[in-house]
Amino acid sequence: MNAPAWNLRDRQRRERLARAAEALGSRLQGRHVATDAAVALLEAVLEPGDRVCLEGNNQKQADFLAQALTQVDAQRVHDLHMVQSVLALPEHLDVFETGIAKRLDFSFSGPQGGRLAKLVSSGGIEIGAIHTYLELFARYFVDLTPKVALVAAHAADRQGNLYTGPNTEDTPAIVEATAFSGGLVIAQVNEVVDVLPRIDIPADWVDFVVKAPRPNLIEPLFTRDPAQISEIQVLMAMMAIKGIYAEYGVQRLNHGIGFDTAAIELLLPTYGEQLGLKGKICKHWALNPHPALIPAIEAGWVESIHSFGSELGMEDYIRARSDVFFTGADGSLRSNRAFCQAAGHYACDLFIGSTLQMDLQGNSSTATLGRITGFGGAPNMGADARGRRHASPAWLKAGGEARAGRQGAAGTPRGQKLVVQMVETFREHMQPAFVETLDAWTLQQQAGMALPPIMIYGEDVTHVLTEEGIANLLLCRSDEEREQAIRGVAGYTAVGLARDARMVENLRDRGVIKRPADLGIDPREATRNLLAARSMRDLVRASGGLYAPPKRFRNW
Amino acid sequence: MNAPAWNLRDRQRRERLARAAEALGSRLQGRHVATDAAVALLEAVLEPGDRVCLEGNNQKQADFLAQALTQVDAQRVHDLHMVQSVLALPEHLDVFETGIAKRLDFSFSGPQGGRLAKLVSSGGIEIGAIHTYLELFARYFVDLTPKVALVAAHAADRQGNLYTGPNTEDTPAIVEATAFSGGLVIAQVNEVVDVLPRIDIPADWVDFVVKAPRPNLIEPLFTRDPAQISEIQVLMAMMAIKGIYAEYGVQRLNHGIGFDTAAIELLLPTYGEQLGLKGKICKHWALNPHPALIPAIEAGWVESIHSFGSELGMEDYIRARSDVFFTGADGSLRSNRAFCQAAGHYACDLFIGSTLQMDLQGNSSTATLGRITGFGGAPNMGADARGRRHASPAWLKAGGEARAGRQGAAGTPRGQKLVVQMVETFREHMQPAFVETLDAWTLQQQAGMALPPIMIYGEDVTHVLTEEGIANLLLCRSDEEREQAIRGVAGYTAVGLARDARMVENLRDRGVIKRPADLGIDPREATRNLLAARSMRDLVRASGGLYAPPKRFRNW
Repeated sequence: MNAPAWNLRDRQRRERLARAAEALGSRLQGRHVATDAAVALLEAVLEPGDRVCLEGNNQKQADFLAQALTQVDAQRVHDLHMVQSVLALPEHLDVFETGIAKRLDFSFSGPQGGRLAKLVSSGGIEIGAIHTYLELFARYFVDLTPKVALVAAHAADRQGNLYTGPNTEDTPAIVEATAFSGGLVIAQVNEVVDVLPRIDIPADWVDFVVKAPRPNLIEPLFTRDPAQISEIQVLMAMMAIKGIYAEYGVQRLNHGIGFDTAAIELLLPTYGEQLGLKGKICKHWALNPHPALIPAIEAGWVESIHSFGSELGMEDYIRARSDVFFTGADGSLRSNRAFCQAAGHYACDLFIGSTLQMDLQGNSSTATLGRITGFGGAPNMGADARGRRHASPAWLKAGGEARAGRQGAAGTPRGQKLVVQMVETFREHMQPAFVETLDAWTLQQQAGMALPPIMIYGEDVTHVLTEEGIANLLLCRSDEEREQAIRGVAGYTAVGLARDARMVENLRDRGVIKRPADLGIDPREATRNLLAARSMRDLVRASGGLYAPPKRFRNW
Repeated sequence: MNAPAWNLRDRQRRERLARAAEALGSRLQGRHVATDAAVALLEAVLEPGDRVCLEGNNQKQADFLAQALTQVDAQRVHDLHMVQSVLALPEHLDVFETGIAKRLDFSFSGPQGGRLAKLVSSGGIEIGAIHTYLELFARYFVDLTPKVALVAAHAADRQGNLYTGPNTEDTPAIVEATAFSGGLVIAQVNEVVDVLPRIDIPADWVDFVVKAPRPNLIEPLFTRDPAQISEIQVLMAMMAIKGIYAEYGVQRLNHGIGFDTAAIELLLPTYGEQLGLKGKICKHWALNPHPALIPAIEAGWVESIHSFGSELGMEDYIRARSDVFFTGADGSLRSNRAFCQAAGHYACDLFIGSTLQMDLQGNSSTATLGRITGFGGAPNMGADARGRRHASPAWLKAGGEARAGRQGAAGTPRGQKLVVQMVETFREHMQPAFVETLDAWTLQQQAGMALPPIMIYGEDVTHVLTEEGIANLLLCRSDEEREQAIRGVAGYTAVGLARDARMVENLRDRGVIKRPADLGIDPREATRNLLAARSMRDLVRASGGLYAPPKRFRNW
């Protein structure tokens, strides 16, 4: 009788399955659970202190199961340890207020950031750590393995095979970690059908399927209305294309979310074409199906896009452009956040994203006081992938610039990823983007974190791009030079005004700082007329009517 | 008639499927292809210049399909671009000699390293690049997407669902990239059954299944006979445990392959226990099922192990210890190289591995002249994961040591991964492990590489461990100090003898260099008696008879 001590997980799993069968009776048929039995199912299988992965993704939400979890009897189910990518819904925090959950490990909190900060400071929640997505998935296989996973799929068949469809996102990573460690996988689905368009998750890996009363929530997070792109953003996008993409020959890249990068996408078929860059830059993307990329795709700029998730309204367009996107034999997108983050980390030469604050060391953060927002995918993609060994011209040039003239270990030749932070010197309400001290330091104190929540470290940033110009930090050779390079593009902020004018001019002479004029860019040409689409309607037209924006973006 | 131009992949896929149906006739039943039709299948579906992923893994080989590929008509199928993790079999290179294949992107070549180098220098092969595994998988989703994948599974059912069993390894990553980009997936299987123990790959993702005439090859690469562990290795293992694992409180880690790390595993239940370290170190592993870990598992040291692949002979042991390993509901291991490499990268605090050569900057390489061996997983795990944001005591302490007293971007607080290179000062045939210049530099010239093939960069190494002691490079504050720290543990090699004795003593006073005596370790205690198992038979005994070593290791 030695064996049982080593197969506890399996025994507990069987006990939980038996409890579910008993509690649900005829409301459980095979793997299928009646909709009105969702709460009873959770009460039957969950135990106090369980580690539970609730699929809160960047876009797709297991919202019905999230709501069911708020309704369990807190006397029976309490002190859960929640692990999830994104805190998106009020229910994600409700469970902490009622004592159903106690501890949290996550990646991003977006709209719940303010409430999360309050819960932390009142002691209502213990935060394990904040992660970048792939890091959190990695820990699912090491020390944060879920006991129960609550996931969302589009459809299930009678056997319990799942079709996750375009928004596959985190589901495969979550389900694999749970199903192969003696855990239980519970999926909510929008519909049950006889034959699935394709199988994304085998029934083998799924224990229970519940049809939700309404389709799962999906947010169109990556849609930017071109009408809102400013001429300053057009100017910055011109600098990005001519001063960085063309300069390094960037073929494989990831764009962060925002109007800044949407502007770049919309300038490829116009300004990029004028510069003769088609086929020379921006061929392969690790990117969600950004509507703003439609004109560049139609103009033949894009060879491939692998996606973390999908984007609402892009379904028909993706199906009609299956040479470009990763799709199944059924024609719909197969996204996969884990693989796309790996692609962003190891197979891209450039990451470009926006930030809210940058300090004189180049550290940047989107953390602001009173909010705990987390990191998402930026730290993974916005860092040098030091395990990378394959060369590309962009990577070799960046590494060469960083290492020229250095000695010792730092002088050993090596490539480097381009990590660009694109930011206007002032953000909304005239808040300066450049600061002496990041809010992250105060937030560290407030929330009792081991380190300040820095999203991209100064050591990893290679270029800072503002409306005043580009600072190439790869070419800086001292802390002093780096500081003046940043001040030199910080415009009329206090940080910018405190520049050493002579040193900044010297950096400009050396090409460390480049103004629009140094790049041969006339700011007067930076008008909205350069955008390949200037409205949502233009995007729809460019797609040949295939793109169907969600209602809130239909303003014509 | 605009649409077809954007769905070429799908059209070509259908054409290839139709060609296969025509060529095979009744030798194709559903997805099942007759064994003797394998060559005809490949000739029907492959086109010149195709990018083909042949599953050559670290352990499991699609050897029947590899052989079939050597037999296709080179007039019809030629100039293939092979992408694969490992070049393990002669067939993997035969296809280049016959012109069937032309270009190669890979990770590791092991036993074929010498022949590969000859083929490269004779112009018989174009190497795209050498990668670390996860990097290669990442490129499958970006710019090295396979058109056809030739994979190996243990069994298929009538529908074509696959059971990959313990050696799932690379299969999910390869199949996902191929199946969702309009490519074709061909699987060889050992048997066709009515009901699979579990489904690892849904039939939806598979186009053709061929029953191979013999089971696919699997190498027991991670088995080390304890009888071959030397007392010097015992001494070094004691230093690793007391001087690094205990010092930093390392809970989550990966061990490279070798007798050095096998010695550590075998000292945990003896020496580690004496030091009172149980529960304080080595709880979570990203590791294949190393037989040498059996005594530590039995003694209750190990909470979890997630694996890249499996290890022959460990099947019954794994099944009986399912609380520790990732297993399916059927009880057999589910390995996954992509997720385990992600775990090694982001969820481990320490990587420890061996090397063949190290220079004065701390760069190390297993490349030797006349051989192109590649990198495998070491660069991914043996590098600081700069995207990591969750803290642990080990990571914070390492980062703190590296950054204490530094200014600017380098002084911003941050954690760091422990990357330990463990090496005897002389290797076989009295070749010094420490050298002024790595062979990698000559190899770069010979093979026309963009960079020297350095496996672990000096910038990423935190500790060098030899029989003379531990050099903590985190504490070095100049190139000169780093060089002397390395010389200070380089023993009687020329590099070691050229040390500045005074500087080395100063480094020792500061704790940068620690000798066994400084760690309270008496080298006379470093005997083989400390090993928890001293032979293969001991390992079998420790497993309660569950471990069944392959024949070649059965020496009793």
